[in-house]
Amino acid sequence: MAHQAELIAVGTELLLGSIANTDAQMLSQALAGLGINVYYHTVVGDNPQRLAQVMEQAKQRADLIITTGGLGPTCDDLTKQVVAGAFGRKLVFHEESAQRIRNYFAHKNRPMSDNNLQQAMLPEGCTVLDNDWGTAPGCAWEQDGITVVMLPGPPRECRAMLEHRVLPYLRDKGEGEILSRTLCLFGIGESAIEAQLRTEMESMTNPTLAPYAKEGSAELRITAKGGSRAECEALIAPVEQALRQRFGALIYGADVKDLTEVACKLLLEQGVTLATAESCTGGMIAQRITDLAGVSAVFKGGVVCYTNEVKRDLVGVSETLLTEYGAVSEPVCRGLAEGIRRKLGADLGLGVTGVAGPGSDDRGNPVGLIYVGLSDRAHTWVRELRLGPDRAQNRNFATLNGLDMVRRYLSGLPVE
Amino acid sequence: MAHQAELIAVGTELLLGSIANTDAQMLSQALAGLGINVYYHTVVGDNPQRLAQVMEQAKQRADLIITTGGLGPTCDDLTKQVVAGAFGRKLVFHEESAQRIRNYFAHKNRPMSDNNLQQAMLPEGCTVLDNDWGTAPGCAWEQDGITVVMLPGPPRECRAMLEHRVLPYLRDKGEGEILSRTLCLFGIGESAIEAQLRTEMESMTNPTLAPYAKEGSAELRITAKGGSRAECEALIAPVEQALRQRFGALIYGADVKDLTEVACKLLLEQGVTLATAESCTGGMIAQRITDLAGVSAVFKGGVVCYTNEVKRDLVGVSETLLTEYGAVSEPVCRGLAEGIRRKLGADLGLGVTGVAGPGSDDRGNPVGLIYVGLSDRAHTWVRELRLGPDRAQNRNFATLNGLDMVRRYLSGLPVE
Repeated sequence: MAHQAELIAVGTELLLGSIANTDAQMLSQALAGLGINVYYHTVVGDNPQRLAQVMEQAKQRADLIITTGGLGPTCDDLTKQVVAGAFGRKLVFHEESAQRIRNYFAHKNRPMSDNNLQQAMLPEGCTVLDNDWGTAPGCAWEQDGITVVMLPGPPRECRAMLEHRVLPYLRDKGEGEILSRTLCLFGIGESAIEAQLRTEMESMTNPTLAPYAKEGSAELRITAKGGSRAECEALIAPVEQALRQRFGALIYGADVKDLTEVACKLLLEQGVTLATAESCTGGMIAQRITDLAGVSAVFKGGVVCYTNEVKRDLVGVSETLLTEYGAVSEPVCRGLAEGIRRKLGADLGLGVTGVAGPGSDDRGNPVGLIYVGLSDRAHTWVRELRLGPDRAQNRNFATLNGLDMVRRYLSGLPVE
Repeated sequence: MAHQAELIAVGTELLLGSIANTDAQMLSQALAGLGINVYYHTVVGDNPQRLAQVMEQAKQRADLIITTGGLGPTCDDLTKQVVAGAFGRKLVFHEESAQRIRNYFAHKNRPMSDNNLQQAMLPEGCTVLDNDWGTAPGCAWEQDGITVVMLPGPPRECRAMLEHRVLPYLRDKGEGEILSRTLCLFGIGESAIEAQLRTEMESMTNPTLAPYAKEGSAELRITAKGGSRAECEALIAPVEQALRQRFGALIYGADVKDLTEVACKLLLEQGVTLATAESCTGGMIAQRITDLAGVSAVFKGGVVCYTNEVKRDLVGVSETLLTEYGAVSEPVCRGLAEGIRRKLGADLGLGVTGVAGPGSDDRGNPVGLIYVGLSDRAHTWVRELRLGPDRAQNRNFATLNGLDMVRRYLSGLPVE
């Protein structure tokens, strides 16, 4: 079984920044799921000398080498020649692959240019990985204790080849399982988590525990290795339980995408409807909620109320409140949450007003002062945030606070 | 001046596939703009031995090494120690950075855990790159003909540090000038541009010309090398002129951030006010517009109208239109644009309605059918889009179309 993998991406477009190396991310996730450690990602251009050096080095430090890219019809044979050559193999013509390529074009009713048949040149003695999602076949072989896999670069093809060709190929070699569980937290920073857990984390070996920052929220990942899935689960369970006891309501989910998803799922499950009135977040809450398909069942809509007139005319905040306290105030936030709930006939209303920055408002309120309010038929809760100078960060954090209030409300937790 | 760069990302979360190495993409694009060749991207985990080996190797083959990640409060000092150690430097406490970190927490009214001050440990004799977007400062130094730059990993911080700290730092080292000009296009894809310009691009050496894809729009970058800025400008001008003749109104700007910025600048310059009524984009247009500080002078606000009731009650679309044509229709789009303009007393109204997907609507309209409308006092223009199955892509493209219509209207170009 492979224990030390290196992923090598070949392509000048990566070095120019035209695309990100998402193939490496995808492959890394899959290998982690197989319990294979990935120690290096390397990106190199379409340059035979540099690729040859990278291959030599990978042979010294990895027992699984997966290359992506450099197999298509516009690439010359160099990538395959260099990779095969690093293991003393030549390229040979693979008639069956050539036939598949001819069929691919015939099926699409498109003429085939000759350079397409270069794709049927493959390292001698390799296992051919048929590509049903494009024209360039992949290949794999084992030699000197090293497993080599070559995959096409386009992410769609690479993903399909991984799932349907590579994982079955690698699983056959595997012993043992690896399992991860990620707890997601809001209201506590990655550094505060780490400060609390450092000693425990350092002494843990199986499972391991690691915190990650995640744009305004934080994650804690528990990873276990074992002989079976059940064994991994048994290792993870007590650690998860202890973390849940420690962090309680700060944990908004396990293995979930983000707060938006968690809040929306709760709305959908409980059939509770929501409406939003956003001043300084300017539609960000509505936009995130509507990122999710199917949310129209519970999201009534919202108002982006950048001016006092819109706050008054469309949301129904009283002129008195606006004049007396100013737009950035606890009472107006309350008025936004309550007003939009009534106006749109929703069960819950979410209101946000504040100074996102970088300039302060006409009443001299400080940058980063933001009020987020949630209203139901009986109560209205308001959080007062005092954030930093960064507009984007402030808008994001206010949005997360709004979603967190919805999440807490629907989970029966204290809202403020 | 640096000619051969290597980007080294430090972080186990990259090797686990939790995130993609988008920092490398961003840095690569920027370095390409400076005429610096990037030959390798390397990703390595939070492991001192492996990082040390990677550093040794980079010293052999690169004269510009940029590391990302490993500077935050939860990282121990190892990354900085290893990178500094590869150049025989120790870490020393940088009081000014420590004070900045303390201020950061004080301003946010949050307690600071002690591990945060680790971030103020920096290689002796380095140039400190202040981080105004997070807590971990970066640093840079030059030694043995090699320039080393260390940046924080979170993409938002890395991008800001690149723009405001690293590019000025690298520009100061340049001998001779390199100048780039990036034309931004909407309404034509990168591959169509490339097909039109391939022959010319291949024969050009100074300036060079390269197309990039950019989330729904495209860019064409002209890069010139010369003895002075004026010389570079003289090389770029005729190429830019020829491209402007060829692509005309498809070009929405040169060296601009995005369509949102261009549209908002035009609104601000001309003192024209805008209001939005968004169904399937769900607030995305409002959110992007309000990303920009100071836009409140021209953005009145908007309504996210996910239900027919909100379209009727808050935007003023007539019940008849909604019943007769259905929410996803040219007449309702028209009604949204006109209605919101009147309701909010704006000069321009922007309305969007469509089927973002993945499911079709209750009238069986196909996924990807979206109407985008712009209304002024005298006219209303509507674009009918027929897009693909991807919800996120559809919402983004509809948003860009809306902004493009505003841009064209204010530039005196045909709107539809």
